[in-house]
Amino acid sequence: MNQLKEEIKTVAVIGTGVIGNGWIARFLANGHDVIAYDPAPGAEEKTRQAVELAWTSLLKIGLAPGASVDRLQFVSTIEEAVKEADLIQENVPEREELKKNVLASIDYYANPEAIIGSSTSGIMPSRLQKDLKHPERLIVAHPFNPVYILPLVELVGGQLTESSVIERASRFYQSVQMKPLVVRKEIEGHLADRLMEALWREALHLVNDGIATTEEVDAAIVYGAGLRWAQMGPFLTFHLAGGNAGMRHMLEQFGPALKQPWTKLEAPELTDELKEKVIEGCETHAGDSSVADLENKRNEFLVKVLELAEEYWPATNSVSKI
Amino acid sequence: MNQLKEEIKTVAVIGTGVIGNGWIARFLANGHDVIAYDPAPGAEEKTRQAVELAWTSLLKIGLAPGASVDRLQFVSTIEEAVKEADLIQENVPEREELKKNVLASIDYYANPEAIIGSSTSGIMPSRLQKDLKHPERLIVAHPFNPVYILPLVELVGGQLTESSVIERASRFYQSVQMKPLVVRKEIEGHLADRLMEALWREALHLVNDGIATTEEVDAAIVYGAGLRWAQMGPFLTFHLAGGNAGMRHMLEQFGPALKQPWTKLEAPELTDELKEKVIEGCETHAGDSSVADLENKRNEFLVKVLELAEEYWPATNSVSKI
Repeated sequence: MNQLKEEIKTVAVIGTGVIGNGWIARFLANGHDVIAYDPAPGAEEKTRQAVELAWTSLLKIGLAPGASVDRLQFVSTIEEAVKEADLIQENVPEREELKKNVLASIDYYANPEAIIGSSTSGIMPSRLQKDLKHPERLIVAHPFNPVYILPLVELVGGQLTESSVIERASRFYQSVQMKPLVVRKEIEGHLADRLMEALWREALHLVNDGIATTEEVDAAIVYGAGLRWAQMGPFLTFHLAGGNAGMRHMLEQFGPALKQPWTKLEAPELTDELKEKVIEGCETHAGDSSVADLENKRNEFLVKVLELAEEYWPATNSVSKI
Repeated sequence: MNQLKEEIKTVAVIGTGVIGNGWIARFLANGHDVIAYDPAPGAEEKTRQAVELAWTSLLKIGLAPGASVDRLQFVSTIEEAVKEADLIQENVPEREELKKNVLASIDYYANPEAIIGSSTSGIMPSRLQKDLKHPERLIVAHPFNPVYILPLVELVGGQLTESSVIERASRFYQSVQMKPLVVRKEIEGHLADRLMEALWREALHLVNDGIATTEEVDAAIVYGAGLRWAQMGPFLTFHLAGGNAGMRHMLEQFGPALKQPWTKLEAPELTDELKEKVIEGCETHAGDSSVADLENKRNEFLVKVLELAEEYWPATNSVSKI
């Protein structure tokens, strides 16, 4: 890992909106030199303010030796930003033509060995890389807001991406305290946004149909599933909802609900093959832990997070006050 | 609230699976007498074990004066269970005909003043109440697993439910440390399960299409959105993703993505009316807090929950270890 830190020292960040600024703060906190570029007037000042806000949290999380906000430099062209960089993080607005144009410039001026990571929320890397001179070093590296705190980064290679690039990138993002999830097949929205977007669209339907206010939707997540999802995803959560028989029982019990209009989204057919995939997936994930073991661990976590959450939940009028 | 505790003293729990047992533990911990019924062989023993497991957490959360596991009594008929009860919580398997039959018995034997709360995940109360003698006291009171820790309970009235019953129920569930969310319009899946089910179905599609394993889906939630959802729902989360202009900017930036196939779920048309509803909803919810204020609060929470989560996350092979 030390070797890698030497390998990727200077990072360029192209596009300094909420996501770009989040990356800058994370890279600085992990002891990198960061060169930033954004054509918007006042971008540098906004970035420095955003980094300052983030720094309060980063100090609590812990800074790498030598980390400093002074190691951020703003420049006025893409060329200057990328020419010395070992890794370039692109974060321009989510419009395919714009991203392709910017990526073409980055690709043109950057060292061919430098990795280009695009923060795109939904566009497939094969579409972004196809006109590049060096498409093999383009990956999607999709983070989550606030980028300087949340550990998830989805890494997605396109048809032309070299697998060694994904490996190098994975080691790099780990070195800045992230948890890279390599997505095995590129699809629009990658993986996490498929899930979030399904929930988001359902939420918009609910508001649109007058079933709930935005605040009620938020309360419906925060006080229930949200607390669980901070520790376990939907599969392991349901594995625990099935009693001792876990997911196998859960699918028997709630499988039929997949035919019900409990969302606007149609479910896949719950074939035996899909059932087994899901059951086996949960059992493999659970490993040697019984459902009761996992329940105990979940409960310990939930009691603590509940205490924490009581303190920080935004006031809401949607649910009755205790 | 003391008056109410006097009013609802004895609670009956009909059906003692994972959810029923969760209710029993919560009611006992809050100082109630609980009478339980389940026809399955060995039900009482399983319940007592489940209550014991829950009690470890409930001791940490804090017990009400006089709370004791000894105040649980198992009986052998629905009649015995409900005849003295002030509130009856029904938790039989999610099959409409079965629920209606059991509810008819409960309704027949219970004091007409007693409230009947059904834990149904998805069935509308109007369908459950229509053949009852006293339909006005039937509500959906839908909790979340583990019921003895998670505070959310959705309260849904049917066409024949008296509004005073919802108010009494709301006060009662608050008195057992819950956060009742009164759902303004009955739909299948109520509110929280609409959202969870959309995410769940998308997750099943991803596994079915070979895009991800169950473990990868779980990682995609836990390390990213899940941490946020423990504090803020999808709307307020996106309000903070939009920079200082909040949801208004966010909808400009990501509104077009609603047309993209980022999930199998089709989005509603993002009309001006829907936009304004969403923006106004977020701004009302945020109240006097600026986006920066909310960011600070979110960050403080996330830094703490991240620390906690590191300790409790189930081991996963899907994401690279740090």
